[in-house]
Amino acid sequence: MGILRLSHAEVRVPDLELAHAYYAEVVGLVETAREPDRVFMKGWDEHQHHSLILTAAPTYGLETLGFKVDSLASLDQLEAAIADDGIHSDRFEPGDLGPGSGKVVRFTAPSNHTIDLVYGMEQVGNGLPLLNPPIAPPDLVGMHPPRIDHIFLMCEDVDGICEFFRKVLGFRLTEQIMANDGHQLAVFLERSHSSHDIAFITGPNGAFHHVAFYVDDWNDLRAGADTCAYHGVRVDAGPTRHGATRGCGLYFFDPAGNRNELFTGGYWFDPDDEPTTWTEAEMGRAIFFYQGQVNAAFMTVHS
Amino acid sequence: MGILRLSHAEVRVPDLELAHAYYAEVVGLVETAREPDRVFMKGWDEHQHHSLILTAAPTYGLETLGFKVDSLASLDQLEAAIADDGIHSDRFEPGDLGPGSGKVVRFTAPSNHTIDLVYGMEQVGNGLPLLNPPIAPPDLVGMHPPRIDHIFLMCEDVDGICEFFRKVLGFRLTEQIMANDGHQLAVFLERSHSSHDIAFITGPNGAFHHVAFYVDDWNDLRAGADTCAYHGVRVDAGPTRHGATRGCGLYFFDPAGNRNELFTGGYWFDPDDEPTTWTEAEMGRAIFFYQGQVNAAFMTVHS
Amino acid sequence: MGILRLSHAEVRVPDLELAHAYYAEVVGLVETAREPDRVFMKGWDEHQHHSLILTAAPTYGLETLGFKVDSLASLDQLEAAIADDGIHSDRFEPGDLGPGSGKVVRFTAPSNHTIDLVYGMEQVGNGLPLLNPPIAPPDLVGMHPPRIDHIFLMCEDVDGICEFFRKVLGFRLTEQIMANDGHQLAVFLERSHSSHDIAFITGPNGAFHHVAFYVDDWNDLRAGADTCAYHGVRVDAGPTRHGATRGCGLYFFDPAGNRNELFTGGYWFDPDDEPTTWTEAEMGRAIFFYQGQVNAAFMTVHS
Amino acid sequence: MGILRLSHAEVRVPDLELAHAYYAEVVGLVETAREPDRVFMKGWDEHQHHSLILTAAPTYGLETLGFKVDSLASLDQLEAAIADDGIHSDRFEPGDLGPGSGKVVRFTAPSNHTIDLVYGMEQVGNGLPLLNPPIAPPDLVGMHPPRIDHIFLMCEDVDGICEFFRKVLGFRLTEQIMANDGHQLAVFLERSHSSHDIAFITGPNGAFHHVAFYVDDWNDLRAGADTCAYHGVRVDAGPTRHGATRGCGLYFFDPAGNRNELFTGGYWFDPDDEPTTWTEAEMGRAIFFYQGQVNAAFMTVHS
Repeated sequence: MGILRLSHAEVRVPDLELAHAYYAEVVGLVETAREPDRVFMKGWDEHQHHSLILTAAPTYGLETLGFKVDSLASLDQLEAAIADDGIHSDRFEPGDLGPGSGKVVRFTAPSNHTIDLVYGMEQVGNGLPLLNPPIAPPDLVGMHPPRIDHIFLMCEDVDGICEFFRKVLGFRLTEQIMANDGHQLAVFLERSHSSHDIAFITGPNGAFHHVAFYVDDWNDLRAGADTCAYHGVRVDAGPTRHGATRGCGLYFFDPAGNRNELFTGGYWFDPDDEPTTWTEAEMGRAIFFYQGQVNAAFMTVHS
Repeated sequence: MGILRLSHAEVRVPDLELAHAYYAEVVGLVETAREPDRVFMKGWDEHQHHSLILTAAPTYGLETLGFKVDSLASLDQLEAAIADDGIHSDRFEPGDLGPGSGKVVRFTAPSNHTIDLVYGMEQVGNGLPLLNPPIAPPDLVGMHPPRIDHIFLMCEDVDGICEFFRKVLGFRLTEQIMANDGHQLAVFLERSHSSHDIAFITGPNGAFHHVAFYVDDWNDLRAGADTCAYHGVRVDAGPTRHGATRGCGLYFFDPAGNRNELFTGGYWFDPDDEPTTWTEAEMGRAIFFYQGQVNAAFMTVHS
Repeated sequence: MGILRLSHAEVRVPDLELAHAYYAEVVGLVETAREPDRVFMKGWDEHQHHSLILTAAPTYGLETLGFKVDSLASLDQLEAAIADDGIHSDRFEPGDLGPGSGKVVRFTAPSNHTIDLVYGMEQVGNGLPLLNPPIAPPDLVGMHPPRIDHIFLMCEDVDGICEFFRKVLGFRLTEQIMANDGHQLAVFLERSHSSHDIAFITGPNGAFHHVAFYVDDWNDLRAGADTCAYHGVRVDAGPTRHGATRGCGLYFFDPAGNRNELFTGGYWFDPDDEPTTWTEAEMGRAIFFYQGQVNAAFMTVHS
Repeated sequence: MGILRLSHAEVRVPDLELAHAYYAEVVGLVETAREPDRVFMKGWDEHQHHSLILTAAPTYGLETLGFKVDSLASLDQLEAAIADDGIHSDRFEPGDLGPGSGKVVRFTAPSNHTIDLVYGMEQVGNGLPLLNPPIAPPDLVGMHPPRIDHIFLMCEDVDGICEFFRKVLGFRLTEQIMANDGHQLAVFLERSHSSHDIAFITGPNGAFHHVAFYVDDWNDLRAGADTCAYHGVRVDAGPTRHGATRGCGLYFFDPAGNRNELFTGGYWFDPDDEPTTWTEAEMGRAIFFYQGQVNAAFMTVHS
């Protein structure tokens, strides 16, 4: 079967205490482990050990991203497929990469992003009892998204990375923005039958655009924006709708400069559904459906 | 008692057919009367004859605005108060100003806006039966706001117009944005115990910023923005929240260039409540609470 | 002008500590004063001293209800009108009736409910600064409705109490449920241009059906029901819509047995709008629009 | 990989014209094919040929249900697994079972429900262009859910059917209601990583409880209930929340007596997440979280 969904992101933050406070109090993630240079966190409704790792580093950006794999057999197959594609990978056993980590195949994608394929990350539960549970824990704060949703990256050769994700990793293309010259400006790819688990847009190799957390509905985006305003967190864009994915989102920045999104909506995607294409002329609507144009920061502000 | 609420706005449109189609199909107002040079419309849940008049004119802008007065005695008192303030007014009988029009006192405010005080505009009902009605008529289209909410104008002397509205017309100040030099940059005034029935911001005398229609909730703002996008109507800003009034809104333009707003929220205001003040430094948050700054068009694009 | 809106309700509770904890933690009202036998509370966005008084008493029910009057002149006029109708009233000065109380005219309505007409209750502010405020205080808990909305009472002679409220107190009829024999089964009356500030339904004189607090939207009703479920508070009905008023509500009980409602929606009502009538056959839809029938408890469980 | 999700339901209706009108106008499904005795319909955002078949029959109930299978290899494996379990199945080629039908393995489950495993049903698109699409088609009517969500059936041996679905069909258990004597009263099972694709509750073998269509949010449930009320469709329960699945739903009946649900919410379920258990004493909250008890019709009204 293979990759199940986006598992986690590891982001760099120069001031670990400040970033920790932000992700705990403003975003409302739950801390599950703490090391001198790393904090492990998750959305409250996630059962696995972490979906976000904050790593002390001189500057901001993405250290690694991880995909959850459904079985050990799938992990082995993916390891082989990566090797067949001529890419070196490393294998890690549970605990090698820190608290909760499972069996991991780590490699660098052609887009120059470090990717972990994970099987068997420790399960820690979602904070609710398994017997007669309430709807949610009573002590949630901030935006408290239930879970991670997708990640959005940049690279020079979008056509190439799209091909790599489809052929080697088994992703399906849901939407694409095509340049007038026929190459792909942006691609949206999924494994979880959602509108996207990962997307790439033209930019520097290795660059990080945003990581998105899921919320239940449009009202949560307003509540999230109110939370940003209360804490003096700068809103980059939204609440708004995306043409591509039909989802709605709110963009804002962590104290280090990493862009976050609260995302809701999108659609179910069957493997035999056809991808949707946006022309270069309509790229503005594809990204910001209401404004019809991409704001200045969207393409220029990233890690 | 006096003025009850905002009654209607009359806006200029160079292409009456196009504007009519826009307000009927996109905004979803209901037509109640048609003349060669004017169309009379209303929100579906309004009982009075009209809350918007489209008037053929060489350019866009506001022709008149009207306030609903609760009784003939109040109309007489307001007429006298205006005269006491040294302002000329004209009196019109029902029908004089067009279909449905009631008894009207018309005058020009110090801000150079023509204002009608109306008593007894014809009641036409809200399209629902008075016996065992459904929740709404079945044939609503577009955004279909139930009713007009407020109007936002510009003038040079905001302190002066605020004083005039309070002393002569009996309005109450709910919020104000104060310049560093101590004068009012913007004022929000009410008669209906809402956050505002009318607001003024510093700008050219006689200028028109926007007319707002009420919708029930935040979801309706997204639906409104989807409607804009579907019809190719340019969204100016939002869906977003205002710091001043705490309401949420969506700005967009009619084909003539008149700015419209869909608005929801705000609060109940008692006559003995204290007004809220925003400093000039926080004006951005007062207008666009999430972005924290006024977009370029907000202050420069108006009639 | 006269009565402005519903001001407050005073309800009886046998266990003051328990009721206090419920209204503070579950409903999320704010305490403003405490006496040995009374607790004074308000919705967070109310500026006046209190909208709910809990009074220790052997059983549950309504002690008094209050309407806010706009001026001392109106209070005097209403006092005279009540006397003209042959009803005795008492006058109280600020503080006479407890902390924050203003000038009060107290009388017993023909329905056998004690009514306070209040002018000048102490203003305490809504907990937000008057300069550059946030959207809401950060420490709200439970359902935290911003304000009281309406009260729903019972009496034997609905026609009579409707006439009294219209003629003596200046209320306007918005909706009525008519029995087949031509008398009124229920009436909805307003002074605040809303769908209702008070309603009466056929039942024992002096009986109390529910007091309603306003919330912003339909999502808040679900959140309120989640809060009930979390705290083990029994939901009586809803979230649902009412045919009469078109508003949406959630009914539940305080620990003493007094019914509460979270209410949202309704409409603006002009003084010259026509009332809506529901037939006896459609009474089920008038009360519970979706179910089409009144649940057993609605007519039989009250104080 | 195996079964991907619920594909479709075929329900019996004595009056095909009436049922067709109801599902088209009230539910707002899209017709894709018509035969003398059958109508094929789908949610607007579904790409496959149909998710609901109406079949003329003397009484109401479920004729078949279908699951979408991801590949021909999976279909073959599932066919073998069913045979290994001692159950006879029949194989059909595309078109054999009507317009749009794919390769089908049909068998009767131990619960006495006829199940189709489908690979390759015709794809017809979701009515939006594949190039620069709008958010939704402009001509949707009624509730217009985007897609089918889950099906809820009854059988005598819930433990047995749960075992069959897990072992033979590869489903995962997300929630269960346990009787005091240790057997399962109800089970919720998934293949799509949602809270449930199918559920069984104790009752007669072969009985049909409801089929659910997905909507985006809680506001859509209110709109759905308004639609029911407008068309005189009886609401069975809701809008409300379920304790089990945490989702929210609205139950109502088609003209034949088949129960429908509009459903939203739920959660993402990983294969290594633990199932949640409800005790018999808490069954009321598991089904109707707010009311805390199952309404009389829920267990007794079914096909």
